[in-house]
This record gives sequence, structure tokens and C-alpha cells, in this order.
Amino acid sequence: MNYPNKKSSYNQKLVNYGNRGMTLEEDINISNKYYLENDIAIVHKKPTPIKVVKVDYNNRINTKIREAYYEIPSTTDYNGIYKGKYIDFDAKETKSKTSFSLNNIHKHQLEHLIKVKNHGGISFLIIKFSMLNETYLLETKYIEDFTNNNERKSIPIDYIKKYGYIINSNYYPRLEYIKIIDKLIEGEINEKKVK
Amino acid sequence: MNYPNKKSSYNQKLVNYGNRGMTLEEDINISNKYYLENDIAIVHKKPTPIKVVKVDYNNRINTKIREAYYEIPSTTDYNGIYKGKYIDFDAKETKSKTSFSLNNIHKHQLEHLIKVKNHGGISFLIIKFSMLNETYLLETKYIEDFTNNNERKSIPIDYIKKYGYIINSNYYPRLEYIKIIDKLIEGEINEKKVK
Repeated sequence: MNYPNKKSSYNQKLVNYGNRGMTLEEDINISNKYYLENDIAIVHKKPTPIKVVKVDYNNRINTKIREAYYEIPSTTDYNGIYKGKYIDFDAKETKSKTSFSLNNIHKHQLEHLIKVKNHGGISFLIIKFSMLNETYLLETKYIEDFTNNNERKSIPIDYIKKYGYIINSNYYPRLEYIKIIDKLIEGEINEKKVK
Repeated sequence: MNYPNKKSSYNQKLVNYGNRGMTLEEDINISNKYYLENDIAIVHKKPTPIKVVKVDYNNRINTKIREAYYEIPSTTDYNGIYKGKYIDFDAKETKSKTSFSLNNIHKHQLEHLIKVKNHGGISFLIIKFSMLNETYLLETKYIEDFTNNNERKSIPIDYIKKYGYIINSNYYPRLEYIKIIDKLIEGEINEKKVK
């Protein structure tokens, strides 16, 4: 895919960030902004769920929340549409250099990803090994396979390298995960051709 | 579509609500719960976006938010997947008996719905005329057409009746909007056949 490069001023600004200190979430948000502005894909991060307990209600616009708590999300952080297809994923960072612990995913988040897959959506995890500065896309079916066939609670990086795809990092978009989705869609088409 | 009826205990409970006092949002949430539990569709309401200003950070689980404010959502409230298709909508209630004021939709919400439509998603508004107890589904293309061809800032109910679909109310699911989406998908298929 040939990305138009009309946001050169933005590029300039990003050079300063370099690779230092940008979280995976920031990288993905910047990529999604690029995809949105260039009309490639519509993917948004969902707001963090917060349980509001006390408010000062002055007027509709100026309500001040006085007491609230973070809640555990019941789905994933990101979803949207690309080439007419529903896509859904979560993004996780790990400091391990050898494996990704499944404790990083809430049980209902994995269940949600599996449901989406079963309904014909494209669902996956984006996993960043921050010490290695490597980021992978791993489809839900391989996570499901792993949990069904293994006792251990962490996925070795070799498994992720074998069944996942490495995502290239650039200035803008930071993480070109859409290119991987192109491959997945092509794969689907090829699979259908084989049948 | 023939819905399985395995949640009879839930049905019972809902009888007490009757039609009194249930907001459109509650109705949709209950319908989505039904669709999810019966594996028909996966549609979730997004959390309300809140800007957090001050927190008491005790530990990761018990963080207390001391000051926060509601933000204007940049997208719609609901999205998900049905029959492999991306669906996206917002729900609006009006006390008017004659028209739906476009002031009820934020500009970027309408822009978002249009983008989703252009990317091949199914996007629409669910509009409830609470005084009439009538709820309609109106596809984005008809809202876009209306705003492109009219000076007036409210859509007359006759226009909504002509181009939209009335949504049946039941006990469970409360609002069978998925049945309307079936019609839309059929319509798409028919349109394609005509070409």
C-alpha cells in the first residue's frame, strides 16, 4: 500500500520523539490518527471505563466529578473498520525478553477477541517487547490454540515469531499494523481459493 | 430470525419495568446483552469519555479519582459486529412529536457515521420519540441526504417514517434493531443483484 505523505509537518514534530519514551498506546493512537486523516481506516481507542460515584452538578457542561474509580474493561481497547471489515484488538507491552505472560490479558478480553473472530471479524493482540523494541501482531486463533494446548501461562517469543507478524516502526504512521491486516485479508482470500 | 428464549427468568424480571421509565439507552443495553448472550451480535456501548485531573494513587486497583470532567465523545456510543459486518450507531431521544432536531447530534458524530458508511460499514441513528413511544432506525445516507438538501435544522417525523424503519419493542430483546439490520443487508444484496 502506498501511503500519501501529506502530513510532513507532523513528521517533523515526531522526529523529536525518536524511539524514546513513546508508549505502545501513544504509538497506536498516532498511527490511528494517520489512518483516519488519510481515510485508510477508522479505528478509535475506547475511553477508559470509569465508575462515577459523586458529582457536583452545576450544569450539563460543567459537571465536576468528585469521586470515581477505574473499572476493568469488559472488551478490548481498540476497534473499528478497515476495507469494510470489523477489526478489534488490544495492545500489550511486556518487559520480558523471552515470553508474553497471559496474565496481561483479562479473561473476558480474550473471550471477547474469540467471539469477534467467530463472528467473522479480524481480531488480534499487538504485543510489544519493549526491551527488544519489537512489536508483533498475533491473531486470536493462535492465542486460542496456545491456551487450549498448553499448561504454561506465558507464550514464548518463538511461538509469537512463528505465528505472528512483526510490525514495522516508522515515523508516521508509527506502527504500520494495517499492512499486516492486508496480509491477513489476502490470506483469507487465498484460503477461500484453495477450497 | 427465530430468537431462542432461554432467558425466561430475565423475561420475568423485565415485566416489572413495563414501558415506564426505561430510557432508550437502557433498552438498547438490554437488547445488546440479549444479542451477546445468544451469540447473535457483539455490540457494546463505549464508556463515557472522562478527563481525569486529580487522583489519589494508592495502588493500581484502588486509585481514587478526585477531580474529573465529562468530555464530548468523538465518535458514537455503540459499535460492534453482526453477520461479519461492522455496525456503528448512536441513540437519541426526543420529546418532540413532530421532528428530530439535528442539534441532538454533535457535528463529529455525524461525520463519523458518514465515514463509517463510506468504508462499507452499516451506520445509523436510533431515534426515539418518547412522547409517541415510537423508535426508528434511520440510516446515515438519509441523514446526509437531508442535511445536504435542506436548510432546516430538524428532520420531520414524516421523513423518518418514509426513509427509516420502525423498531418493534418487546420484553426481551427490548428493541429488535437487529431485525432491521437484516433488512438492510438483504437490501444491499438485492441492490447488487439489480446491477
